[in-house]
Amino acid sequence: MKLWSKGYAVAPLIEQYESARNAQLDAELAPYDIWGSLAHARMLTSIGLLTKDEWLSIHKALVELLHEAEAGTLLPNMAEEDIHTLIETQLTERLGEVGKKIHTGRSRNDQVLVDIRLYAREALVTIAQNICKAAESLLELARRYEWTPMPGYTHMQRAMLSSVGLWASSHAASLLDSMVSLAAAYDINDRCPLGSGAAFGAPLPLDRDLTASLLGFASPHDNVLTAANARGKGESAVVQSLAMIMLDLSKFAQDVLLYTTSEYGFCRVPPELCSGSSMMPQKYNLGALEIMRGRTQTIISMQTQMAGLPSGYNMDYQETKAPLIESVHICNESLSVAAIYAEHLSFDEERVRAACTSELFATDRAYDLVIQGVPFRDAYRQVAKAPAAGDGGDLDQRLRARTLRGGTGNLGLDALAERIYQEQLVWEARHEHVQSAIESLIALAD
Amino acid sequence: MKLWSKGYAVAPLIEQYESARNAQLDAELAPYDIWGSLAHARMLTSIGLLTKDEWLSIHKALVELLHEAEAGTLLPNMAEEDIHTLIETQLTERLGEVGKKIHTGRSRNDQVLVDIRLYAREALVTIAQNICKAAESLLELARRYEWTPMPGYTHMQRAMLSSVGLWASSHAASLLDSMVSLAAAYDINDRCPLGSGAAFGAPLPLDRDLTASLLGFASPHDNVLTAANARGKGESAVVQSLAMIMLDLSKFAQDVLLYTTSEYGFCRVPPELCSGSSMMPQKYNLGALEIMRGRTQTIISMQTQMAGLPSGYNMDYQETKAPLIESVHICNESLSVAAIYAEHLSFDEERVRAACTSELFATDRAYDLVIQGVPFRDAYRQVAKAPAAGDGGDLDQRLRARTLRGGTGNLGLDALAERIYQEQLVWEARHEHVQSAIESLIALAD
Amino acid sequence: MKLWSKGYAVAPLIEQYESARNAQLDAELAPYDIWGSLAHARMLTSIGLLTKDEWLSIHKALVELLHEAEAGTLLPNMAEEDIHTLIETQLTERLGEVGKKIHTGRSRNDQVLVDIRLYAREALVTIAQNICKAAESLLELARRYEWTPMPGYTHMQRAMLSSVGLWASSHAASLLDSMVSLAAAYDINDRCPLGSGAAFGAPLPLDRDLTASLLGFASPHDNVLTAANARGKGESAVVQSLAMIMLDLSKFAQDVLLYTTSEYGFCRVPPELCSGSSMMPQKYNLGALEIMRGRTQTIISMQTQMAGLPSGYNMDYQETKAPLIESVHICNESLSVAAIYAEHLSFDEERVRAACTSELFATDRAYDLVIQGVPFRDAYRQVAKAPAAGDGGDLDQRLRARTLRGGTGNLGLDALAERIYQEQLVWEARHEHVQSAIESLIALAD
Amino acid sequence: MKLWSKGYAVAPLIEQYESARNAQLDAELAPYDIWGSLAHARMLTSIGLLTKDEWLSIHKALVELLHEAEAGTLLPNMAEEDIHTLIETQLTERLGEVGKKIHTGRSRNDQVLVDIRLYAREALVTIAQNICKAAESLLELARRYEWTPMPGYTHMQRAMLSSVGLWASSHAASLLDSMVSLAAAYDINDRCPLGSGAAFGAPLPLDRDLTASLLGFASPHDNVLTAANARGKGESAVVQSLAMIMLDLSKFAQDVLLYTTSEYGFCRVPPELCSGSSMMPQKYNLGALEIMRGRTQTIISMQTQMAGLPSGYNMDYQETKAPLIESVHICNESLSVAAIYAEHLSFDEERVRAACTSELFATDRAYDLVIQGVPFRDAYRQVAKAPAAGDGGDLDQRLRARTLRGGTGNLGLDALAERIYQEQLVWEARHEHVQSAIESLIALAD
Repeated sequence: MKLWSKGYAVAPLIEQYESARNAQLDAELAPYDIWGSLAHARMLTSIGLLTKDEWLSIHKALVELLHEAEAGTLLPNMAEEDIHTLIETQLTERLGEVGKKIHTGRSRNDQVLVDIRLYAREALVTIAQNICKAAESLLELARRYEWTPMPGYTHMQRAMLSSVGLWASSHAASLLDSMVSLAAAYDINDRCPLGSGAAFGAPLPLDRDLTASLLGFASPHDNVLTAANARGKGESAVVQSLAMIMLDLSKFAQDVLLYTTSEYGFCRVPPELCSGSSMMPQKYNLGALEIMRGRTQTIISMQTQMAGLPSGYNMDYQETKAPLIESVHICNESLSVAAIYAEHLSFDEERVRAACTSELFATDRAYDLVIQGVPFRDAYRQVAKAPAAGDGGDLDQRLRARTLRGGTGNLGLDALAERIYQEQLVWEARHEHVQSAIESLIALAD
Repeated sequence: MKLWSKGYAVAPLIEQYESARNAQLDAELAPYDIWGSLAHARMLTSIGLLTKDEWLSIHKALVELLHEAEAGTLLPNMAEEDIHTLIETQLTERLGEVGKKIHTGRSRNDQVLVDIRLYAREALVTIAQNICKAAESLLELARRYEWTPMPGYTHMQRAMLSSVGLWASSHAASLLDSMVSLAAAYDINDRCPLGSGAAFGAPLPLDRDLTASLLGFASPHDNVLTAANARGKGESAVVQSLAMIMLDLSKFAQDVLLYTTSEYGFCRVPPELCSGSSMMPQKYNLGALEIMRGRTQTIISMQTQMAGLPSGYNMDYQETKAPLIESVHICNESLSVAAIYAEHLSFDEERVRAACTSELFATDRAYDLVIQGVPFRDAYRQVAKAPAAGDGGDLDQRLRARTLRGGTGNLGLDALAERIYQEQLVWEARHEHVQSAIESLIALAD
Repeated sequence: MKLWSKGYAVAPLIEQYESARNAQLDAELAPYDIWGSLAHARMLTSIGLLTKDEWLSIHKALVELLHEAEAGTLLPNMAEEDIHTLIETQLTERLGEVGKKIHTGRSRNDQVLVDIRLYAREALVTIAQNICKAAESLLELARRYEWTPMPGYTHMQRAMLSSVGLWASSHAASLLDSMVSLAAAYDINDRCPLGSGAAFGAPLPLDRDLTASLLGFASPHDNVLTAANARGKGESAVVQSLAMIMLDLSKFAQDVLLYTTSEYGFCRVPPELCSGSSMMPQKYNLGALEIMRGRTQTIISMQTQMAGLPSGYNMDYQETKAPLIESVHICNESLSVAAIYAEHLSFDEERVRAACTSELFATDRAYDLVIQGVPFRDAYRQVAKAPAAGDGGDLDQRLRARTLRGGTGNLGLDALAERIYQEQLVWEARHEHVQSAIESLIALAD
Repeated sequence: MKLWSKGYAVAPLIEQYESARNAQLDAELAPYDIWGSLAHARMLTSIGLLTKDEWLSIHKALVELLHEAEAGTLLPNMAEEDIHTLIETQLTERLGEVGKKIHTGRSRNDQVLVDIRLYAREALVTIAQNICKAAESLLELARRYEWTPMPGYTHMQRAMLSSVGLWASSHAASLLDSMVSLAAAYDINDRCPLGSGAAFGAPLPLDRDLTASLLGFASPHDNVLTAANARGKGESAVVQSLAMIMLDLSKFAQDVLLYTTSEYGFCRVPPELCSGSSMMPQKYNLGALEIMRGRTQTIISMQTQMAGLPSGYNMDYQETKAPLIESVHICNESLSVAAIYAEHLSFDEERVRAACTSELFATDRAYDLVIQGVPFRDAYRQVAKAPAAGDGGDLDQRLRARTLRGGTGNLGLDALAERIYQEQLVWEARHEHVQSAIESLIALAD
């Protein structure tokens, strides 16, 4: 039965349209809804709207429901509309009158807001951890091939000398650069909307600071209408940061797809990472990397799904759940796939060296003239007349001689390792903070 | 087992990433895959690559599988990757050696292409039928209130006299305007890709005209590489046309949401079409219309999910399935929801008449001066000094006097009814053509 | 001075925000606005709201303004807001009282609608002509290399035997496939909105059929509110069809970028089509093709700029002008760039032949076994054990043997040439129809 | 002449396609390009690649060019391609041989990267300042109407008691919430790419830490290939954060458009903020707010324009300039427009009070029962039977009684003022840091 049931049945078509897709997505939010309910109930107790005994029985029932949610058996159906309804209904079934008190001073509007923020915080922690793992695999790859020369390309053409080490570590560093926007997305989601109700608070002395603190939030989201209007913004911040990560991953994917062609032949992956053709017996396709490229576009386009609306809560916002949850899944899986590819890539030293042909060194030759005092633009024009003259010389020596910060001879791999480690610590601390708040809430029923 | 199985197991993570989401979507394509297989097998028979007995046994097994698909029991799992694999596997299990012949001269690439086009054609027929139904409901609404005056708004402000009849029929006519792009999307999907194989055809005398004709296509999609590169374009054409339909529906939704506010109070819907609030006892929300508005944005953004790629088949294309299938579902449901709202809207004659205040007639007053010979711009400036002077006069007479084509006194509702009817005939004929081809294929096993 | 000037000055910031960008875009619409004004004035004359003398003097002034517009000297400034204001202002300056009559029975809302449709029809004709030119260049390229073998790729890996002829003609055919949606976009824009006024018509006996016919439209856009609500839809139809064309062009661009790398080395373009690096003397970059790829994404994203709004005219719609006009420019230029590249591509026969290595023929070998009676799946698995065994045999013979429709031995280049020719005729006829209507309007002042 | 000129002329069509739009956008980047050149030249001096005299003459010429750029007279034309070329060309014209040395150790790739980051940092400062100004105007509005009751709406229907103060301050707080992502975008752009060259550094002992420090960057962007691959990411971070700001502004716009309708009649703006209709004499349209709503969609869709590409520099990236620069302009203007509307909104106390009808208090009545011990869900159902019974009571008292944090009785306007002030300080400090670095660079030529 719906919470707002008033003695009439909603037309089945309308019920289907409003609830079918939503109920399915809500399964992922179940644990977070229960966390929020625990904090809300405890706060109601603190202001005298629940007795201690009521709190104890609600606490017990919610913890049971949490176990069911974690086991995946707590699934809202269409008639129940959403996870919020399911949980109030369950409480009332299990506890009678007491269950009917849980919704005092809240609305499904602030409930779904808090669910999504709790979900988003956890999701961002997982993404950050998977970034660290993928970066470690790439760093390991960079260490294996730190001194393996490879052409560097711009405009898809041979440009200057590069190395496998530079290439692999650059992808690791790019991923780590995303930590800035991930952390911002975390902060944006780290304010507690509970107490904002339907968007206008409630004429009850709800203690918003307490609820926020019980759930490990940095603070309540001040101004009740701002909190309500923020629906979609926290989700957007997550999807936007994931879009940038996918952009990095798609460059990695695209590079590997290119380097593994017959024409490049720079590297290989084992068949276990390939799929085949139903028609052509010889094919070993790196389909997962193509899908990674395709899903990047999917997530990029999801950024535009957050529509502009009048302030106050509107049901349009339901449409933000799917892009949020799907993009988190896609990005987590994609990071794991990138890591496994990085671990298994093996480069063909001979092929990559052979590809380091003399035109790669045209700029070096211009700089040789510069050192002798020729102005750069003149040196450039002189070399341009015969850009492929001479050979590359000693590739290893050349790699080592590029000692400018971040160049092939000065990749800073140890600093990169340290950077990964520091990020792990930071995100672990974020995770611990939330976990310990939630554990207290679950453990301590008084 | 995968069709391309070569004695090694794909890493589970890769299998999950490549196949999990795809296998789920493929359930919707199952009947179309079997239609395509029937046509392909029959063509192979006609060129001697299957014997008549082989054809008869394959035909029988495919028809059985079709019944299972229609019953919803034919679901690919992740290990089987996709519907194509499932069906070849089933044929081989049921028929032995003969099953292993079905894939002669085709690839999963042209198979999925044909599945999607067969799906798209059917989906477009359903959309067109639902447009007709929604347009009929709106037309009916227009007939009920043909002579009910209502303010017309521009920039959200009262502009000129309008009528409920004009408003309702305008939404019907807008929906019908979409038939042009629906029909174009149909034509784009009405060419048979079978025989293009992996993108380069096959060194076999495949009769592409025959296969096309057996499946009721207008023609084969000429140039095998063009056919393969068209993946994503047929889907895009569908999604693009649905985006325009949703844009129309979202305007209808937005209007109704506005007109049903306390402030406007122009119309009401029965509670059966409303949902409530978990917190506020008085609320009757038109949530379905808000979701319609939100889903419009979802489909609009899906247009951007079709990425640019090198020619030839790539797995990125898998990502086009979900937007296609989801947008078809959303649009069909949304049309039905719009129809049911149109059927149940009741207008408050008194309120809408009362809202027809004198400023609505400022332009009429300027035209009165024009008729007396004052140049329009002078008349405009004269009226602008006291735009709300006088009253609206006899509203009914005014409505009837706007006799220009498509105006309140000349809505052309009968012509609109005829237009709906003609579209029904056209789409019914498209549907019949395909159905009769498929029925022949199923019935006639020789 | 603004048309709606009522004795107060708009705040400069607001004027800048509303008009600066719009006035600039309106320069492109000037001729179309004058065409529409000619038709509107003539219709007013036919219903007695202008005298014949007034019509003659308005006609003369408008034709003068048209020459100025074509010379590019008719540019609205910010104070005048838009092209509509500029033209009424000019008429009043040049003709006095008569000029103040031009706006009788119309609004800038239906004026901008008609301008955009007139613009869109012309733009679509130009796009179609440029498609034909690009397709001709590609067809010519296909003829030059009809029998030059080349590997066909799927998943960026060598798949099966293809030919330069197949590759080049496939891009021509893909472009031609877009004619279906171009024609639909034309039809969608081929209905005359004049007479719809601000969205609710006018209490005047405007002859909408006459105006439509004078401007060469197929018919008036029936239902005045539908016409107004269609703002954005005609533009969308254009941008959507251009997005598909750009998708095709980006595949061509991406292929050429790949085939011209050192690693592929399949073809070259002359330096005149390349740009260089400011740093690296040896570089010849195909920058224009990269930009083509980038602009594809630009136009794809422009599809989402058409927002959902309440019905009736709103100023948000102004934002649809820029994507329309920019995407038309980009697509026309891109088609010309593609044509010039196609004309100048030269293939290295030796390199492409050498790339046709034995694994390309694994499927052929499986089919050889099929012909001998081995079921395909068994043949596939047998070949998979040594997919690169044997050699490709006589490549020329193999190319010619692929005689299935649209395959390398049966490309249908003459049919393609005929298809281009037929499209040229169709679009020329559309163009002629409009031109002759407009010429009559200009020539015939009675 | 192009920097890479090698004795052939580029085809005019290609030149137009590659450079026309770019050269125009580059005018905005001119000052930043010169800042970057000053820092680069000074660093070259420090490592001995320029003599002190060369540095002094380059410094003098660059400072002159900077004055021209600030005066708007330094505009690249199409033949010069871009601002980088223009400046090297000018230096060579003015200084002879010395000018030809400026490009030593850099590429236009790292030059445009640094230009964009310098531009982005400045733009973000301006945006932040404009947010503060708009927030101040909204705060002022909230103070004026802190105790003016107004209905709060959800689902466009009357929900619960709100106040003009809550409404106005919620928009201020929403804008301030964007500071988190603005600051993240700043940090993402606050790393210096100079020295990364074409993407692979240079075989020269460039001192990347020095250049970074001279330009006031937090650090060099480590890993030269990561720096190059970050093109598009810094821009995206800006556009993404602006999209969220526009989403907030569009809600403000939509609310005001609704509240100023005849039907709501809650508030008015003076005519100076309105535009009119060319046809209807009575209209005062809030067109700027509609455009704000439309431009929100424009910027949201710009997020998808950053395409995924192979690593290393590609010309596709040129397409990221326009969305960056346009979205900055649009957002800055929109914030100013919002501020001016907030300053001039006047509410009609009588109308808003009259709209506070009894159903707004249904939830209050349910809570009254809760206080008496009735479980909430039972209280809800009891009230639902007659939701509009009774009246609202003393509205002022009710407003004041909602004392929960962020509610109508506890808006925290002083804290909001303090928050604005703190943000102003933080952004001022960011601005100062950059300015003082640049001033040193300009002042100190040794």
